[in-house]
Amino acid sequence: MRKADLTFENGFKKKGLSNLLVHDCEFMKVLNFNFEPGQELPVHNHDIEGELTICVLEGEGEFLGADGAVIPAKFGDVLISEIAEPHGFRATTRVRLLVHIAPPI
Amino acid sequence: MRKADLTFENGFKKKGLSNLLVHDCEFMKVLNFNFEPGQELPVHNHDIEGELTICVLEGEGEFLGADGAVIPAKFGDVLISEIAEPHGFRATTRVRLLVHIAPPI
Repeated sequence: MRKADLTFENGFKKKGLSNLLVHDCEFMKVLNFNFEPGQELPVHNHDIEGELTICVLEGEGEFLGADGAVIPAKFGDVLISEIAEPHGFRATTRVRLLVHIAPPI
Repeated sequence: MRKADLTFENGFKKKGLSNLLVHDCEFMKVLNFNFEPGQELPVHNHDIEGELTICVLEGEGEFLGADGAVIPAKFGDVLISEIAEPHGFRATTRVRLLVHIAPPI
């Protein structure tokens, strides 16, 4: 049992997303991405079995999907997606995301 | 791909934790627990293989562990634990937790 303190361990970068590998084990991978306003995690996917969640811990933006799909995203929203489905994110304000991928990529 | 809106779908209950099953699939289970101040998820464990994370989305309290262990918990903290390790939570303020369990129980 251990604690990760995301607000202490990960900040924001003007040049691009600020990434933190929170946890990696045989069952799942946990990542924290911090965005400045306007920063984006481009739509992407991986052709493997599994699912992922993207939780908005702070801020507002948009979940991005296939064919230009845009889903409004704010604190407390959780996107659930297959790893094989196209997914991404664009930040309107400063945003902190927590991503779980199972099984780990 | 779908979105869960935790602040819309789950509130708070005076009589006990307010629970929401956010997602359940073959790879992981995702739960949201909301606490009023003073409410507690008692220390417990399951004798099975796997790991879990507990993320504090809002508020302050304490992660609870074996032998009376207490770890301060606030927004942005993520506890990582084996499912077999004793774990629990006690809220000081109103708290929203997001729990991921992989593989699902």
